[in-house]
Amino acid sequence: MKDRLSYAMIGGGIGAFIGEVHRRAISLDDRAELVAGALSSTPERSRQSAAELGLDPDRSYGSYEELFERESKRDDRVSFVSVVTPNDSHYPIAKMALEHGFHVVLDKPATHTSAQAEELARLAETKGLLCCVTYNYTGYPMARQARWMVEAGMLGRVRKVYAEYHQGWLAKDLESSGQKQAAWRVDPKCAGLGGALGDIGTHAENLIAFVTGLEFESVHAELHTFVSGRALDDDVSVLVRFPNGARGVLTASQICIGEGNGLKLRVHGERGSLWWAQETPEELRVAMMDENPVVYSRGGPGLCDDATISSRIPQGHPEGYLEAFGNIYKGAIDAIIAKRDGGEPSRMAQLIPTIDDGLRGVRFVEQCVASSSGL
Amino acid sequence: MKDRLSYAMIGGGIGAFIGEVHRRAISLDDRAELVAGALSSTPERSRQSAAELGLDPDRSYGSYEELFERESKRDDRVSFVSVVTPNDSHYPIAKMALEHGFHVVLDKPATHTSAQAEELARLAETKGLLCCVTYNYTGYPMARQARWMVEAGMLGRVRKVYAEYHQGWLAKDLESSGQKQAAWRVDPKCAGLGGALGDIGTHAENLIAFVTGLEFESVHAELHTFVSGRALDDDVSVLVRFPNGARGVLTASQICIGEGNGLKLRVHGERGSLWWAQETPEELRVAMMDENPVVYSRGGPGLCDDATISSRIPQGHPEGYLEAFGNIYKGAIDAIIAKRDGGEPSRMAQLIPTIDDGLRGVRFVEQCVASSSGL
Amino acid sequence: MKDRLSYAMIGGGIGAFIGEVHRRAISLDDRAELVAGALSSTPERSRQSAAELGLDPDRSYGSYEELFERESKRDDRVSFVSVVTPNDSHYPIAKMALEHGFHVVLDKPATHTSAQAEELARLAETKGLLCCVTYNYTGYPMARQARWMVEAGMLGRVRKVYAEYHQGWLAKDLESSGQKQAAWRVDPKCAGLGGALGDIGTHAENLIAFVTGLEFESVHAELHTFVSGRALDDDVSVLVRFPNGARGVLTASQICIGEGNGLKLRVHGERGSLWWAQETPEELRVAMMDENPVVYSRGGPGLCDDATISSRIPQGHPEGYLEAFGNIYKGAIDAIIAKRDGGEPSRMAQLIPTIDDGLRGVRFVEQCVASSSGL
Amino acid sequence: MKDRLSYAMIGGGIGAFIGEVHRRAISLDDRAELVAGALSSTPERSRQSAAELGLDPDRSYGSYEELFERESKRDDRVSFVSVVTPNDSHYPIAKMALEHGFHVVLDKPATHTSAQAEELARLAETKGLLCCVTYNYTGYPMARQARWMVEAGMLGRVRKVYAEYHQGWLAKDLESSGQKQAAWRVDPKCAGLGGALGDIGTHAENLIAFVTGLEFESVHAELHTFVSGRALDDDVSVLVRFPNGARGVLTASQICIGEGNGLKLRVHGERGSLWWAQETPEELRVAMMDENPVVYSRGGPGLCDDATISSRIPQGHPEGYLEAFGNIYKGAIDAIIAKRDGGEPSRMAQLIPTIDDGLRGVRFVEQCVASSSGL
Repeated sequence: MKDRLSYAMIGGGIGAFIGEVHRRAISLDDRAELVAGALSSTPERSRQSAAELGLDPDRSYGSYEELFERESKRDDRVSFVSVVTPNDSHYPIAKMALEHGFHVVLDKPATHTSAQAEELARLAETKGLLCCVTYNYTGYPMARQARWMVEAGMLGRVRKVYAEYHQGWLAKDLESSGQKQAAWRVDPKCAGLGGALGDIGTHAENLIAFVTGLEFESVHAELHTFVSGRALDDDVSVLVRFPNGARGVLTASQICIGEGNGLKLRVHGERGSLWWAQETPEELRVAMMDENPVVYSRGGPGLCDDATISSRIPQGHPEGYLEAFGNIYKGAIDAIIAKRDGGEPSRMAQLIPTIDDGLRGVRFVEQCVASSSGL
Repeated sequence: MKDRLSYAMIGGGIGAFIGEVHRRAISLDDRAELVAGALSSTPERSRQSAAELGLDPDRSYGSYEELFERESKRDDRVSFVSVVTPNDSHYPIAKMALEHGFHVVLDKPATHTSAQAEELARLAETKGLLCCVTYNYTGYPMARQARWMVEAGMLGRVRKVYAEYHQGWLAKDLESSGQKQAAWRVDPKCAGLGGALGDIGTHAENLIAFVTGLEFESVHAELHTFVSGRALDDDVSVLVRFPNGARGVLTASQICIGEGNGLKLRVHGERGSLWWAQETPEELRVAMMDENPVVYSRGGPGLCDDATISSRIPQGHPEGYLEAFGNIYKGAIDAIIAKRDGGEPSRMAQLIPTIDDGLRGVRFVEQCVASSSGL
Repeated sequence: MKDRLSYAMIGGGIGAFIGEVHRRAISLDDRAELVAGALSSTPERSRQSAAELGLDPDRSYGSYEELFERESKRDDRVSFVSVVTPNDSHYPIAKMALEHGFHVVLDKPATHTSAQAEELARLAETKGLLCCVTYNYTGYPMARQARWMVEAGMLGRVRKVYAEYHQGWLAKDLESSGQKQAAWRVDPKCAGLGGALGDIGTHAENLIAFVTGLEFESVHAELHTFVSGRALDDDVSVLVRFPNGARGVLTASQICIGEGNGLKLRVHGERGSLWWAQETPEELRVAMMDENPVVYSRGGPGLCDDATISSRIPQGHPEGYLEAFGNIYKGAIDAIIAKRDGGEPSRMAQLIPTIDDGLRGVRFVEQCVASSSGL
Repeated sequence: MKDRLSYAMIGGGIGAFIGEVHRRAISLDDRAELVAGALSSTPERSRQSAAELGLDPDRSYGSYEELFERESKRDDRVSFVSVVTPNDSHYPIAKMALEHGFHVVLDKPATHTSAQAEELARLAETKGLLCCVTYNYTGYPMARQARWMVEAGMLGRVRKVYAEYHQGWLAKDLESSGQKQAAWRVDPKCAGLGGALGDIGTHAENLIAFVTGLEFESVHAELHTFVSGRALDDDVSVLVRFPNGARGVLTASQICIGEGNGLKLRVHGERGSLWWAQETPEELRVAMMDENPVVYSRGGPGLCDDATISSRIPQGHPEGYLEAFGNIYKGAIDAIIAKRDGGEPSRMAQLIPTIDDGLRGVRFVEQCVASSSGL
């Protein structure tokens, strides 16, 4: 019999973007059911959203405080909460969730400050709860293949890493038009210290760390704001040094007209290199020294187990963003079941990003802002 | 409140491929729930599969006959049945389903003979029931954009159409190894008259008809079997004439090593051309006479409503095969609701392939086989 | 000391396209010098063109007849003549050249009729002269790599070949505008039996033969003219059978808006496949069964000698059309020197297309026209 | 009558790479003839090389000093000298050439120090002579199209520029194997201050300046040497600030396995963006805000005159590196003729890089080295 968890969502109501992504990503594998929610910032809108999603009105809460208080008293309380609010509320919500004994899946970046992220990490540790942070791009099978190849030493020692995350949608002053997704991302109160840096630069940082296993030793960052009147950076370029002597260049920008969601990674090692791009996620290009480049593809030959278990349909039948996102949830659900049942977490569970990644991401934002201020 | 239908699945049990695709495609939008099934060819395996999927044992049936008989007597009978068995049983199952008043979603190719497809079409018509055939590739937003551009006359009168569907997985004698997916596809009893022709050539035919609105006037086909011992074609090339004087070349092959699921369409008109490929479904290349080619993309500028309503997430966040498949089910569910409630079917419902497409596909197979035999 | 031949050109004067291509292709390697010519159809224009090219007025001839008569009497007579006139004059010019003892380099298609080509072949054989036909696309290093891989058996027995040559420039009635390149190509008197078929279809035929070593056993062709008033085909689709049981599809069209000079080849064998496209000539994609595709590139690892000797500059420094064309001339000059000096012809000389290829090409045109007429 | 100049080459003898490139680039248009040379570092090898190239032994000189002394006394003295020696001798050779009244075409980077380049610039100015520096990548038609589009304001004010030049051939210690091209490039005595920085980073700097018209206001550079024992950088990453407030990222590396000659440019402006890559030089991708990207191609619609006059053959017939290099020489020859005859230099002449570009490039190297030392 299928082991299906129940979960609550905080945020993600009418007009939100990422909440629906989380719900679809979960429903793809049908291993958890949304049964409760505090879906919007006002009780009225929350209830309206809950009705549209078909939630039991009794479990449609007006606020996250109410949700935690009442859910925690139910026998059929939800297993986990999915937190998809703007950044500023991540910390108080996740903290209260953990304090009430709920596993947490948190959108990135985890928190505004590294102190907050540290606290969440400690709390999750103490309580024995999962605190997963949805660095969703690590869910792509070919990103996992890349990670495995580096870890297996196929490329030799890593020398140079290029990661870029370029978008174009904020090349104009979209926030003044009232576009909600734009507005909160450029507002320091909601978004925190970083604009493009926090919103997408952290994904690039995380992808580097995931694939190469390398943390950043030091950064030289230049944050810039091109659209006048904007309070946060919309463009950042970072030179990176890694502990093993490797060097990196990370750029994140939201003013690159013509770019959709251009997250790309290149890793150059002593013996070989790899290329991966989120917009064509099914392929991984690998070149070994003195050999012709080889194109690996999802579902194709030569893949590691991590890639295989992260794939749902055969080669040539494109998977995409939702499937990758779903892999994070698959791992999170596995992790929660393992905590519940006491077993060894599955490999899918081992691969997911946690609050430790979240903490590292927030520190990266802080380092870049400090570096750039000193310029 | 969400309008969620219930459905039964016939076929798609343990070890099947396409059944899971159908279930995932449906669950992506969470608008129908699997509540009953006759999932395998034996009662034992059916029950086992049903248990794994979490079905109520009371609605896990040992055969499709049992399913239709018992479900049709329930007050909470399923709205529709999804038929994902090998080709040979499509006709009797769909016929019985329609006779018992169930809407049907049928995998392609619809039936073995055009007479069978005609009968299903008549039956569906008489009973006022939906009989949808899952030519799933027409669910891609950019294929729908292509269709709209041709219909709107942007390319002028269509002159030449190239459609190809090339795979490589049957380049060797996979069926002898016991691989189930291979075995039934090359067995005339299960697959019908066509091998590659029926399995994938029909998708190419359907895509041409969907995008250009053109039916085939006549064909000159050459079927060939490259793998010795195989009873059906594994390669087919077809020269096509269309009623408007246009010409076409359709090729389908399963012996093209290095090809995954290479369905590609090119349409050349008097004023412009378009290119689309299923393996990179997010882009549509369009070239107008004396202008530089333009790359349209899902979620990007200049899209028609049909593309927009068929899209779930923003540009640059890749959608794929399951989302396209899900669009067929979205339309089917809309169509069923419209039939139930009496309203005008939604645009999504109008876009789906029906048994009329299925019939045309079976006739195409018959024409090609007749043409090739006469060579 | 450098061994530099002298040559004459017939055709290729002011306003011509292909003559300049031939001259540049030769000058790239600086192994032959243009010293004489009958460059246009009238003596005046010929002389004017000769002056612009800096020819000695004494060797600027008013007609090809005059050229052959007078050059053949000089001690410093040219080694070879390059014939770049429209198709209809190829035969008489080449015949007279050979009769006067000149080696010939002839643009394709060789002649109007296969009887003419046979006669040229016999004449060249009898006289011990070179008659090279510039199927220039076989000069590309990666086309030569492809040829070598097939010959070496890497792909196993060839099963299916796709060759296409699609252009868009004749999608409209360009000939009525007085465009010279268009006008003669659609005029049966100049162009012969085939329009797109002769002009570009023959290149596709030749590329198939060059790479696979397979001649066409039989064809089923459909010629069509889309632009009204045009006397020759502007679109042709051909189903091909090869003696070894392989099958092929060859399409050539000049009404494909958005296509520039789209010559592409795909070869599928029992063990592997290859893909090559003239517009991205530096790469050759190869996929072996159950392996990931590998991208070979000019100047890169794993190349055969034929590719290496056909390359001038390192990998990543793009070579193109003129370099490939130059390789045909390099081989022709080598062949002429070998005939003069009595040695074994170089490998470059062995790789060039001759009147035998030209003859096969004309036969292909005749076969297709015959097949299409019978439809 | 054709106006053909004569020239001498210094360096470029047996075993050299770039000398042959220069000669082929010139011969492509047949507007200058090599008649003299000091082709190698020893008189014997020079003479041997001269013989192979078919030079008159009387004009085969043992040293550049001899060449200038004796050529300057001839009535038929060469018009210009092409200097293709390793970097360290550029300055003395070019200086002596200019002092003897010869126009100079100099390989890049121009000199070891900016003081030397300044002196050459002054000398050329004073003497009224051309001193062209072969930043050959600016000769590509589509790079010139890009330049024109930026200058015409199509992209609006430039905000962010990415230029990269990545190669992989020095990922291993090739210099120890005695490979000549590697050896001098990593030797500070020959190469100067920069390794990858000077060899290829300067091309990236020049391409930015050429296309955007922007000079570098300040740089933050990180030079690194990955291959142990190497005396110069093999990898450099530079953050750039431009006077108009734009930002840039320039990376140059020779340790990127799998990269051939990967020079790429991206320019993001307030209203649009463009992408160009040297390895696929025929295409230029342009995206305007809220519009779909358009692919311009050489020979295609919508090109400026600068692109058109820099193109030799039609769209779809690939041009490459030699053609682009030839465009620099075409312009240089035009410039020399204009100086000789007193007319206005042609547009081709106006587009070529001169010693002013060379000077800016050397300053860029100096700035980066200074910046990196201070880290």
